[in-house]
Amino acid sequence: MTYTLVLLRHGESDWNAKNLFTGWVDVPLSEKGVEEATRGGELLKEAGILPDVVHTSLLRRAITTANLALDAADRHWIPVKRSWRLNERHYGALQGKDKKQTLDEFGEEQFMLWRRSYDVPPPAVELGSEFSQDADPRYAGEPQVLTECLKDVLEREMPYWESDIIPDLKAGKVVLVAAHGNSIRAIEKYLDDISDEDIAGLNIPTGIPVVYELDENFKPTVKGGRYLDPAAAAAAVAAVANQGR
Amino acid sequence: MTYTLVLLRHGESDWNAKNLFTGWVDVPLSEKGVEEATRGGELLKEAGILPDVVHTSLLRRAITTANLALDAADRHWIPVKRSWRLNERHYGALQGKDKKQTLDEFGEEQFMLWRRSYDVPPPAVELGSEFSQDADPRYAGEPQVLTECLKDVLEREMPYWESDIIPDLKAGKVVLVAAHGNSIRAIEKYLDDISDEDIAGLNIPTGIPVVYELDENFKPTVKGGRYLDPAAAAAAVAAVANQGR
Repeated sequence: MTYTLVLLRHGESDWNAKNLFTGWVDVPLSEKGVEEATRGGELLKEAGILPDVVHTSLLRRAITTANLALDAADRHWIPVKRSWRLNERHYGALQGKDKKQTLDEFGEEQFMLWRRSYDVPPPAVELGSEFSQDADPRYAGEPQVLTECLKDVLEREMPYWESDIIPDLKAGKVVLVAAHGNSIRAIEKYLDDISDEDIAGLNIPTGIPVVYELDENFKPTVKGGRYLDPAAAAAAVAAVANQGR
Repeated sequence: MTYTLVLLRHGESDWNAKNLFTGWVDVPLSEKGVEEATRGGELLKEAGILPDVVHTSLLRRAITTANLALDAADRHWIPVKRSWRLNERHYGALQGKDKKQTLDEFGEEQFMLWRRSYDVPPPAVELGSEFSQDADPRYAGEPQVLTECLKDVLEREMPYWESDIIPDLKAGKVVLVAAHGNSIRAIEKYLDDISDEDIAGLNIPTGIPVVYELDENFKPTVKGGRYLDPAAAAAAVAAVANQGR
């Protein structure tokens, strides 16, 4: 008896395409992202891996990706759960900034520390500023988030993993999580026991489902899972690694 | 203190456009339907009527309509609940048949009896036939439905109204129900105390939200509610009434 978990990073967003730090800014998918999301659903259908329930973040790019992928897989009718705990990492004061410009301004070392260090968050976003979420009704009643490092993401994600994802897996459901580069990196760090150093090297391709079979302890039978289109996943990972260059 | 309920019939589907009886056949929106759904969301946003939770049927045309409308209203992130109890009326053996052809074949009286009588269902769909849903996984474990009259729709809808919609209203949430011509007619029959005879004359426009303010007994403060675009609603109702002609 194994449990099946599918992780899906949203398709390319408008701001991925523009090379801007996005975080919790709620940008839509680009046209390419729409195609990627649909293709992701076709891959699920072709593989016969049919989600019984979907969990999404509260951000449009993950929600639209789930909607399009599930429609393409004929699973648009399954139950939906959403949580801010699956959101992308909050990028603090970097939200809305150009990645290349940030790299040039702050230098390689600081840039990579903010992007890939496990426990160094960017400076906090200023309350009430253009790309802050402090007045956004979807986060009303939740703890205020002004910036995050990957460690913060893992720590706010785990309660949801325990309270909502594990129970669905336990019930024998194929669980789809439609989320973000860093909220998926955090889940994979946990599942695959990746060290704080090694996690810097893990990049997640957009729109390509990765399937984890989990054992009775909800740990992977195969580390890293299995991408449904391994060649496309490898190419996409290389592209993500080169962002900001 | 009143409660706010918004009813939204899906945008035009491929089979509305082709003038076929659809029922539980899971057809997508037409291009016009996609535009209508988006416009429906813009109407909500302009009116400042922002759903806190959405209830949909298990059919793609209602689900896609909800997705598109909520995205246009910046409410894509709200909780979602789905139930077969909000599905369109099951059209039995008429599913997949041309409305005009059916009118010509069976005559005006029988045609209108099937389409608009309160308690005469069409002949049952044949098990295992092309447009039957008996093998569809989304209905596994639910009572088997092979045909329905409007009375059947109201009777299977009311348990969900009590168990899921009333509690959300009671919690003070603005509730959006994204559903179908007949599942909305049934709700309106109940809300507005429309007689079994008069309900024949009620047609629901596609893609235009109607807003009901409900009193402490969950009955409308104004019968028939309020369409957010009354002129477009009136024109659309006339078009629905002429289907099959």
